Amino acid sequence: MLIIGEKINGTLKKTASAITGRDCDFIRDLALRQVRAGAAYLDVNAGTGGGKEAEDLVWLVNTVQDAVDVPLCLDSADPAVIGVAMAHVKHTPMINSISGEQARLDGILPLAKDKGSPVIALLLDDAGIPVDVEKRLTIAMRIIHQTRKAGLPDSHVYVDPLALAVSTRQDGALIALETIRALKRECPEIKFCMGLSNVSFGLPARTLVNQAFIAQAILAGLDAAIMNPMEQGLVNMIYATELVLGRDRFCRHYTQAFRSGMIDPNPAARS
Amino acid sequence: MLIIGEKINGTLKKTASAITGRDCDFIRDLALRQVRAGAAYLDVNAGTGGGKEAEDLVWLVNTVQDAVDVPLCLDSADPAVIGVAMAHVKHTPMINSISGEQARLDGILPLAKDKGSPVIALLLDDAGIPVDVEKRLTIAMRIIHQTRKAGLPDSHVYVDPLALAVSTRQDGALIALETIRALKRECPEIKFCMGLSNVSFGLPARTLVNQAFIAQAILAGLDAAIMNPMEQGLVNMIYATELVLGRDRFCRHYTQAFRSGMIDPNPAARS
Repeated sequence: MLIIGEKINGTLKKTASAITGRDCDFIRDLALRQVRAGAAYLDVNAGTGGGKEAEDLVWLVNTVQDAVDVPLCLDSADPAVIGVAMAHVKHTPMINSISGEQARLDGILPLAKDKGSPVIALLLDDAGIPVDVEKRLTIAMRIIHQTRKAGLPDSHVYVDPLALAVSTRQDGALIALETIRALKRECPEIKFCMGLSNVSFGLPARTLVNQAFIAQAILAGLDAAIMNPMEQGLVNMIYATELVLGRDRFCRHYTQAFRSGMIDPNPAARS
Repeated sequence: MLIIGEKINGTLKKTASAITGRDCDFIRDLALRQVRAGAAYLDVNAGTGGGKEAEDLVWLVNTVQDAVDVPLCLDSADPAVIGVAMAHVKHTPMINSISGEQARLDGILPLAKDKGSPVIALLLDDAGIPVDVEKRLTIAMRIIHQTRKAGLPDSHVYVDPLALAVSTRQDGALIALETIRALKRECPEIKFCMGLSNVSFGLPARTLVNQAFIAQAILAGLDAAIMNPMEQGLVNMIYATELVLGRDRFCRHYTQAFRSGMIDPNPAARS
């Protein structure tokens, strides 16, 4: 399971201030801590609403790359911004995101093909986020039809089924899980990536809900998660779930993670 | 999910001393703490090896019933001991356990039928614990054939598929989960109960493994668990899993459990 660190995101207040104030130390620290906590990719989002997103994202990319040597996940609603940032990355980045919205597809697919970038595909379209599995599959198949036409292999497409908050829809998590299972049957090479935190929105002790959800999502076929790698309980659950699902030969990942302090039953956030 | 408290067990050293020394306070405290932490049943096992198990179990039953008002799970390898203790219980107890061993079946089924007791059925027989799903199903069907013949409804039979330690068998948890799924298809009324702790034997931070396992087991169809209700992380995971699986209307159980302190993302064992 690939962990994509979610913390360098301009929609978060402190990160937004750091971006507009060009606070290198703040961003570098956030990058370092996420990588130390197990992030294999770092999401970088400069969407502060300040009107110079491309410039901000280039600064973010450079600042993060000064601190750590992991690939990035370029995160913007604007394909032009992704295109500008693309020229500054050291490693092939993921692109976050495409969706069933035609403008995004048209803007991003040529870039992804050109750079060999995996893309994250959100199951929504110009009409919004559908609530039922059937409609999500329809959007997924429409997106996949276009990624294939653009020359992207299915294995480079990470579908995010968009888990809705269980506090507002009792079946919010189930719909996402069933979407993964159904699409996996249809397109076995397609990968799956989730933004985890929404599922627990509005509930107390949110990390417990995220933990239970990721255990089920890994079984369903989740390959990657955009998440806070400092959320210790969640990282614990990823290692332990891979273990009980028989995917950890000789329990090596689990025991090494324990010895190196990557997992710890005390879930206080790592600093 | 029914929690059956496992702590009043003569094979645990401190409990054994309390039983032989007739330490009422120790046993009462253990009973109270488990019920406060959410146990709906308490397992009582007087197997200290001291040679007077029936007398010890009757003392245990009376001592526990003085402290708490929950049904018991009478736990002995000896049907005669169960028979003696049976006369002292206030509420209809569960019986732990039958198995494919003929002597246990012959001894316990008439008692269970007579008292209307649910029974826990371990998937082992005179030849031991089989490692593959197929053989476990064979034992299960042999047991169920006999419970039906004895007049027990399927809904009173709690099958324990016996999860082997993942540290010695990578697929130890998977075999148990697949056994539940397969038997559920065959006999939809049959219930499932697990002793959880064995799956994590030999590993560090065992509670994490137990947590990941119970999340998968609940999805597979687990109805009850013999466990330590003071293992906070495990109780957290039960509530959160029922929630993400859409089984908690309006998130009521989860939010009430949070408000009353039954769940708490700080997993330090409750005292």
